[in-house]
Amino acid sequence: MSNLRHEDVQDRRGVKQISMLFYYYSLAFGVVALAFSAVAAYVTLSKETGNKKMQEISEAVRSGSSAYLNRQAMTIGAFVVILSLAFLLLQNGTQIDIAFITGAVTSYLTAYLGMNVAVRANIRTAKAAEKGVKNAFYTAILGGSVTGFAAIGFGLIGLSLLLQYLTISNVTILIGFGFGASLVSLFARVGGGIYTKSADVGADLVGKTELNLPEDDPRNPAVIADNVGDNVGDCAGMAADVYESYVVTLVAALLIAAGLGTSVKLFSYPLYLASAGVIGSIVSMYFLQAKGRDATKALYKGISAAIIVTAIFDFLITTHLGFPITYMLPVLSGLLLAILLFAITDYYTGSGKKPVVKIAEAARGGGGTDVIMGLSTGLRTTFFPVIFVVIAILVSFAAAGVYGIAIAATAMLSLTATILTIDSFGPITDNAGGIAEMTNMPPEVRRVTDNLDALGNTTKATTKGFAIGGAAVSATTLFVAFAGALHITSIDALNPIVTAGIFIGALLPFIFSSFLMEAVGKTAQLMVEEVRRQVRTMKGILTGKTKPDYARAVDIVTVNALKALIVPEVLAILTPIVVGLVLGKEALGGLLIGMIPSSFVLALFMANAGAAMDNAKKYIETGKFGGKGSDAHKAAVVGDTVGDPLKDTAGPALNSLIKVVSTVSILLAPVFLAYALI
Amino acid sequence: MSNLRHEDVQDRRGVKQISMLFYYYSLAFGVVALAFSAVAAYVTLSKETGNKKMQEISEAVRSGSSAYLNRQAMTIGAFVVILSLAFLLLQNGTQIDIAFITGAVTSYLTAYLGMNVAVRANIRTAKAAEKGVKNAFYTAILGGSVTGFAAIGFGLIGLSLLLQYLTISNVTILIGFGFGASLVSLFARVGGGIYTKSADVGADLVGKTELNLPEDDPRNPAVIADNVGDNVGDCAGMAADVYESYVVTLVAALLIAAGLGTSVKLFSYPLYLASAGVIGSIVSMYFLQAKGRDATKALYKGISAAIIVTAIFDFLITTHLGFPITYMLPVLSGLLLAILLFAITDYYTGSGKKPVVKIAEAARGGGGTDVIMGLSTGLRTTFFPVIFVVIAILVSFAAAGVYGIAIAATAMLSLTATILTIDSFGPITDNAGGIAEMTNMPPEVRRVTDNLDALGNTTKATTKGFAIGGAAVSATTLFVAFAGALHITSIDALNPIVTAGIFIGALLPFIFSSFLMEAVGKTAQLMVEEVRRQVRTMKGILTGKTKPDYARAVDIVTVNALKALIVPEVLAILTPIVVGLVLGKEALGGLLIGMIPSSFVLALFMANAGAAMDNAKKYIETGKFGGKGSDAHKAAVVGDTVGDPLKDTAGPALNSLIKVVSTVSILLAPVFLAYALI
Repeated sequence: MSNLRHEDVQDRRGVKQISMLFYYYSLAFGVVALAFSAVAAYVTLSKETGNKKMQEISEAVRSGSSAYLNRQAMTIGAFVVILSLAFLLLQNGTQIDIAFITGAVTSYLTAYLGMNVAVRANIRTAKAAEKGVKNAFYTAILGGSVTGFAAIGFGLIGLSLLLQYLTISNVTILIGFGFGASLVSLFARVGGGIYTKSADVGADLVGKTELNLPEDDPRNPAVIADNVGDNVGDCAGMAADVYESYVVTLVAALLIAAGLGTSVKLFSYPLYLASAGVIGSIVSMYFLQAKGRDATKALYKGISAAIIVTAIFDFLITTHLGFPITYMLPVLSGLLLAILLFAITDYYTGSGKKPVVKIAEAARGGGGTDVIMGLSTGLRTTFFPVIFVVIAILVSFAAAGVYGIAIAATAMLSLTATILTIDSFGPITDNAGGIAEMTNMPPEVRRVTDNLDALGNTTKATTKGFAIGGAAVSATTLFVAFAGALHITSIDALNPIVTAGIFIGALLPFIFSSFLMEAVGKTAQLMVEEVRRQVRTMKGILTGKTKPDYARAVDIVTVNALKALIVPEVLAILTPIVVGLVLGKEALGGLLIGMIPSSFVLALFMANAGAAMDNAKKYIETGKFGGKGSDAHKAAVVGDTVGDPLKDTAGPALNSLIKVVSTVSILLAPVFLAYALI
Repeated sequence: MSNLRHEDVQDRRGVKQISMLFYYYSLAFGVVALAFSAVAAYVTLSKETGNKKMQEISEAVRSGSSAYLNRQAMTIGAFVVILSLAFLLLQNGTQIDIAFITGAVTSYLTAYLGMNVAVRANIRTAKAAEKGVKNAFYTAILGGSVTGFAAIGFGLIGLSLLLQYLTISNVTILIGFGFGASLVSLFARVGGGIYTKSADVGADLVGKTELNLPEDDPRNPAVIADNVGDNVGDCAGMAADVYESYVVTLVAALLIAAGLGTSVKLFSYPLYLASAGVIGSIVSMYFLQAKGRDATKALYKGISAAIIVTAIFDFLITTHLGFPITYMLPVLSGLLLAILLFAITDYYTGSGKKPVVKIAEAARGGGGTDVIMGLSTGLRTTFFPVIFVVIAILVSFAAAGVYGIAIAATAMLSLTATILTIDSFGPITDNAGGIAEMTNMPPEVRRVTDNLDALGNTTKATTKGFAIGGAAVSATTLFVAFAGALHITSIDALNPIVTAGIFIGALLPFIFSSFLMEAVGKTAQLMVEEVRRQVRTMKGILTGKTKPDYARAVDIVTVNALKALIVPEVLAILTPIVVGLVLGKEALGGLLIGMIPSSFVLALFMANAGAAMDNAKKYIETGKFGGKGSDAHKAAVVGDTVGDPLKDTAGPALNSLIKVVSTVSILLAPVFLAYALI
């Protein structure tokens, strides 16, 4: 089965002995990360929970979120079972299945655990807000870190354990692990994305526009669904996405290293770098503290600390392993990429920054001009991320060949825990704000939660930059690994079969996102109708005397989100299979290299256009251009609505798309080699 | 300079003698086309012009349009002069300059003549509407055919004359001709696109929303600018775009044929096919007649007739030249592609068709959901066009190698005259409607012009499908020619330098369109302010007592559109030069093959999303979902505004972008070969 050269490693037992050492290292660091996550969970959960009303709401959100993840698990389970059976037909089928199921289960566990702590951290953050920003900020960060460290913990432990049973020559089996993580991520991203925005858009449309209720008003029957959405989308979905990037990058790096077949040194380097990331991320937690206005600064400080500490350890590892110092170039490229993507997104989508102010200004001309400027800004934001990724690829390649690209990707993704911590901060503070609003907490507390909520919006947007860039880098690494797995030495774009593949690849992200956008449009409409129905039939909802039927609203989104995700899922899995079988492996290579950049720019465009329009609305709400309730504000709300599925559904789901397509392509390599028509 | 093999054609004089025959053929058919155009112009201009008030308005639109094209000519002239001087540094510089200037001048002439007749046909169409649909329809079609036949006439004559002075071995000089056409097209598309939508959006925003004036109300100071925009954008811009596709496809086909170097037969085939298209297009004019409700059918009939007649002649040519019958596969693929792209666009964007009704339905939820469904529809429309193009490429390649791809592209573009006729019908009827409205023509006449205006909207949208597909096919052919010109035998996507090129290529269309969207947003805003200023300072405008200062409004858009086009132009020309010099020829190949599909899908997405949202608004205006003035209608107006720059500025401009980048890459081949850093 294995296609990798392994001249230097003839002795299976010898390999094992050399490698055991680093398996144990990465295993140990995985355990450390998981332990940190457990401690963070324990500390978070031991904080004060607030009064009964707060608990009631938090409980509703928690149970809605769990209900969704449980039902989603059933759908995913069905796919996993079918695919596991299919994989048995492959050579090494059992081993692949073990890897695959491990990947799927750890991914879901990450999402599940992270989200379960997040839905408990929200109320504690709201409560902590009574004591000021500092307390609330750290509670949310701590709650978020549970997800962050669980991700790298599960990733390192899973990989290290699997490696115990593999040799360099059959390491391609690991791609099963990557595919398991990808599959779950695709579901979590797509399902969660559709869920969160259907609920959000639906709640806003009818709540804010028709009924004139403020955000998070408990009289809005869709309000709980909206808060559930934050958790299943921004928290669970994002966790699965970044977990997947983390895992598949490591797998791709190992595959590429094995393909080079020179030594265990090349093979162990990525795992050492990932381990260094654990230390860096733990240290960064100390810097992720804020007292007030400096909250954004704290985020930069946290990431910078993670980068510096990780880089120092990376340097020690590089010299210790005897690599030339030039190997630090890919490492540093990867690490810098993380903070650059963060900063670029911050500039283009940050409230009060020039691009956002321009959109707010355009809102004076109405919803149309607001959206035109929003889309234009989104298009513009693609420039620097792509150019930086290109530079990172070229520098890394110049320094250490294709292996350098894998190293850069690994270094970048070694910051996963820190970034995911900052990201999960978003839905926690968002929910905390919701709880504070719904339970009429005092104004000074509300000011704290509102501030954190706004910051959370920024972190959700900026970490998306990392997730999108990470996915692109990781998919590029998979592309290199793909060529190795299929013994392809050249994918010649001048060959029209390859050209055909490139066209189909560029097309796929557009079609894929069209289903997602449509699903949000449709489901939001159902939500609107349900809210209207409740308000009409259950008198007293608007006066606050009757409690709306939150559960039913939650149910509608749950059912429809799960229904809507089937077509895009199948599309993502089947496209590479059909292209690989009908047009052959080189066309499949074309598909990958056509898809990755197309998806990268489309995701950046969508995510950033959405975030910028969201923040333009928020900027107006601070009193600019007429403030809340003005015509400009109404126009900005239209932009925000358009931006919602762009930034939280279609855009991020593309990350999962490109990784699933890439892993399927590698996983089924033997099938394509044996049965392709061309 | 020439890199083409020419084993079979050692004798320069011998070549000339064999080839003279087909030069004369294509020259003759070019003259026939131009003569047809002249006759059509004469017949159109000899029609009745209507009363004084109508003439006054028509004259205002005409002089505004001419003023814009004249000023645009100055800007383009500056670029042409600078580039001509630069080209003198190349080997064969003088010959390249002759080709380049011919290309630029013929392109501008096509746009200029076509538009000049169109701005005179509008009033005649309005007048003819007094006699019913049939008369008005044919007047508009005849006026449009002036552009259509001028395009193929100039193209064939220009190429045939240039060929007299070239041999197969130095035929690459022809790319100068293609680049000239591309450059002008880029300006005409971008400048015209920014102009038309800034004026349109500006006029609508303040006119319809603030002042509550109907469309084309003479009291709106922006109304003339809006009508000028239709002509300089939809008419002149589109003409230059399709002319360019026509020319560069023929040039690329000749380059590919010369590269194969086997015989004059391969070399003459594309020109014969283009000549067959002249006959087909002339015959189609007979079928482009409509009496009433069957107007759309007439369009399908016209295109079908053109295809059938052209196919018959193509068959005769193919067998006469002794090509295997399989060569008809690329020919038929190309011809079918034309009508398929037309039909797909019609389905997705036609008023009353399912996708458009869905958007109109979503408008009930507000502007946000309207745009969400519009964007989702736009994304979806990318599927069939790309798949059909891919199939055409694969079939053509299977039948006749890379030469087959060139043949398919040539066959498709041989329908240029018919498609351009149908397209130019759009701005003529749009303007006719405007004149009828502004001069208060009787309701029964207005009903005729309104119907034709609606049909014109459909033809503008559907022919855009052809223009976008044509650009993609033509750019793919140029890509093949590019590899020949730079002696590249493989563009290996696994080489990270090529990967870098692909990423940059996928990025370019996004950045390019961001500038265009922004320019529309900004200039529309200036227009809004000017209209407000006039209404405020010139009392009596709203009561109709004072004539607004139309010229000033025209001037503002003119100046700003011309200012805004510089950056995107320079970006388009410099990007391939920088990539070619810094990263080398293979990265440049990567850039082209990354850019073409990315641009193709983005253009389809933008153009179709815009057209669908436009027609959703129109659908509501027929009384559905509350009709005009309802909340759904207001929401649909937002969608229409967002769609405007997508469909008429950014989307179509991408066609010109990919051709300019491709022709620059071939034109500067010797520079890249000599001076590239890598």
